[in-house]
Amino acid sequence: MIPTILTWDDIKPIVAEIDLVHAMEEAFIAYSRKRAVIPPVGELIFDKPPGDVHLKYGYLKQGDYYVIKIASGFYNNPQLGIPSSQGLMLLFKQTTGQLASVLLDEGNLTDLRTAAAGAVAAKHLGPTRVACIGIIGTGIQAIEQLTALKTVTKCRKAVVWGRSENNVATFIKKANNLGFNTQKMASPEALCQQSNLIVTTTPSTKPLIQFDWVQPGTHITAVGADTANKQELDAALLSRASLVAVDSLSQSRTRGEVYRAVNSNELSRDDVVELGEVIDSNTITRKNTSEITVTDLTGVAVQDLSIARAVFLSASAAS
Amino acid sequence: MIPTILTWDDIKPIVAEIDLVHAMEEAFIAYSRKRAVIPPVGELIFDKPPGDVHLKYGYLKQGDYYVIKIASGFYNNPQLGIPSSQGLMLLFKQTTGQLASVLLDEGNLTDLRTAAAGAVAAKHLGPTRVACIGIIGTGIQAIEQLTALKTVTKCRKAVVWGRSENNVATFIKKANNLGFNTQKMASPEALCQQSNLIVTTTPSTKPLIQFDWVQPGTHITAVGADTANKQELDAALLSRASLVAVDSLSQSRTRGEVYRAVNSNELSRDDVVELGEVIDSNTITRKNTSEITVTDLTGVAVQDLSIARAVFLSASAAS
Repeated sequence: MIPTILTWDDIKPIVAEIDLVHAMEEAFIAYSRKRAVIPPVGELIFDKPPGDVHLKYGYLKQGDYYVIKIASGFYNNPQLGIPSSQGLMLLFKQTTGQLASVLLDEGNLTDLRTAAAGAVAAKHLGPTRVACIGIIGTGIQAIEQLTALKTVTKCRKAVVWGRSENNVATFIKKANNLGFNTQKMASPEALCQQSNLIVTTTPSTKPLIQFDWVQPGTHITAVGADTANKQELDAALLSRASLVAVDSLSQSRTRGEVYRAVNSNELSRDDVVELGEVIDSNTITRKNTSEITVTDLTGVAVQDLSIARAVFLSASAAS
Repeated sequence: MIPTILTWDDIKPIVAEIDLVHAMEEAFIAYSRKRAVIPPVGELIFDKPPGDVHLKYGYLKQGDYYVIKIASGFYNNPQLGIPSSQGLMLLFKQTTGQLASVLLDEGNLTDLRTAAAGAVAAKHLGPTRVACIGIIGTGIQAIEQLTALKTVTKCRKAVVWGRSENNVATFIKKANNLGFNTQKMASPEALCQQSNLIVTTTPSTKPLIQFDWVQPGTHITAVGADTANKQELDAALLSRASLVAVDSLSQSRTRGEVYRAVNSNELSRDDVVELGEVIDSNTITRKNTSEITVTDLTGVAVQDLSIARAVFLSASAAS
């Protein structure tokens, strides 16, 4: 069996035709219904230069393919003109273990499925009327989140905060090209005062957002923290939110915002629901227009399986 | 950066030129000197049809590449005319996380590095005079072990035991083609009585060899058991052996013969040494011609790193 090798140039037009928000909804539902077999995330950590590699892998019971996804962040790469995020996905036949496809997506499919998950969170937990979208961070995931949000909200007003003036300016240009009216904010606090749908996309290891800054009725999706030491939201924000959802309860035991908040005794694990349960239910949702809700995404292999499989099947059908 | 994609046809002539026994010795030494960062093995288990997938990955401190190796065994595959063992290796730049090479080796490099590790064990712990080599099992690893042993012993007498008459006959043909005088044995017990260098290569979950059957001065290398439930050697054989070596002490906490023997309280972990320590030392070795010694191999990512890197660098130098 000769595996189908797909480069990002092959994948890009194919993935543009896929309804990723719908695909991620289905993936999260399957996951929360316990149809997925997803071992703990594998991890390689590098010191000099700093980098972390995540291996996410798994399959659906009664499914047809298993996935292995490698995604890395090497944060000094941009100094060399190389994107921080790198990676590829591998798809194998579940009945024989044969390699079906190598998706040389250079980390782009991870960026897209993560952004689509942010849109899923906003669709199911975001305020009915989004007044303004606040984006913390200015990297690839920042612009991808904004892009994905276009499919679930009509709001075209955005504010952004980032550490680097240059990167903020570049982000604003890209956001405006997407059709947003985008302003830079002087601080995360100022950003919180302007927006009621916030997405945090940084590799920060210290909280960037405090509860007191957040407007009633706001939804916050935290995307950046995917290891044990990263954190973007103050733990008290999670404990005082009306509803905290995660993509994976089991992963939240070892990584992400919920891990940090539970670890510092600010949050009880019992008060956290899974995003798939939210999608699958009519009752687990925002109850009124003043509640503050939070989604913490650490990224689950079931998302990688969903996007890799969809791309491979489209590519196979076209050839 | 465009990754170098190597098929088995590309890899086969390259790997034939590499001194794998020497490469594995160096890999085991680096590992036992704690130069390697090797997380626990990742695992996916399938029921219908039965299969297991292992993810092995890691790097050397101050090294240049990190490896991720996927190897699977789907034991019903031969019924479909497909080899049981499947897999590939991925090599990434350690400084940037960029994918350097995809080695579509179809599991062959795993077979070769495992066989080379068996030869390393025989070289350092085997009897000085090998009277006859006994091979338990008749699959790919059985013949690869015999092939690799040719580089470390002059013995060309072999005996084999396997469940299937047909497979035994095929194995004997292949072994004789390698220059061995090969006889089939009626039982593992008969095989033990004929040979003083034994390699077990099956996916058995029940012990195939008892201590009482083994001749004084024999070395046994157990290659088959690489999960928590597989076992080829009776636990008492390990406890009564003069020396038990493993490729990885940390992996032996969760898989393989040593795991099984410690788990059934037959063996103390303190009585087990690492193969890298044996190679690195003049004192940890066979003391006389009557000792029975055992090596338990579960396969370590440092071996995969060594073979994948050597193949990639050869391929790059040639192109």
